[in-house]
Amino acid sequence: MKSTPAAVPLLRAELGDVLRGIRRAQGRTLREVSLQAQVSLGYLSEVERGQKEASSELLEAITSALGIPLWCVLREVSDRMAVFEGMSVPETLPDGVVPVTLIS
Amino acid sequence: MKSTPAAVPLLRAELGDVLRGIRRAQGRTLREVSLQAQVSLGYLSEVERGQKEASSELLEAITSALGIPLWCVLREVSDRMAVFEGMSVPETLPDGVVPVTLIS
Repeated sequence: MKSTPAAVPLLRAELGDVLRGIRRAQGRTLREVSLQAQVSLGYLSEVERGQKEASSELLEAITSALGIPLWCVLREVSDRMAVFEGMSVPETLPDGVVPVTLIS
Repeated sequence: MKSTPAAVPLLRAELGDVLRGIRRAQGRTLREVSLQAQVSLGYLSEVERGQKEASSELLEAITSALGIPLWCVLREVSDRMAVFEGMSVPETLPDGVVPVTLIS
């Protein structure tokens, strides 16, 4: 069950991908979300492209602007990385929670 | 379902707490894990105390040294943050995966 650093995508890449997916599913622009999260557009763009590590505070601001709890985003990132490592992840979520990928 | 930044613990604090919990459950010292992960002891200590953001690469190195996939650690962090927000998280994990909290 050891992880394989060479093959597994980096956390910031998966995180950025999930954040961008949520924003696009909501039909919102980088500008709209960056304004609401009070982060620069360039910074948000770099985070989404996995080119910059987001601090905990800014990650909280971004997910808050997206209206999605950070733990939900982390769960999606975790599931993606698990699937990448060949794990089968059950489709269970806490009661009443809609999977991030289904939120529009 | 909006997150509440003021009340929810920061990601790096939860992450550090989970990493320290795993290391201690394994009965290993900061020195042992830092040597294996090739990160400085001071850096690892700061990450565990939630005082420093770990880069994706170093997080991968630390979890690899602990013998736990990063996605497993993220899942535990996500679950903790969800519980903090009052969510009920089911006790399901991918087939064959032992919960991080039970690994010794």
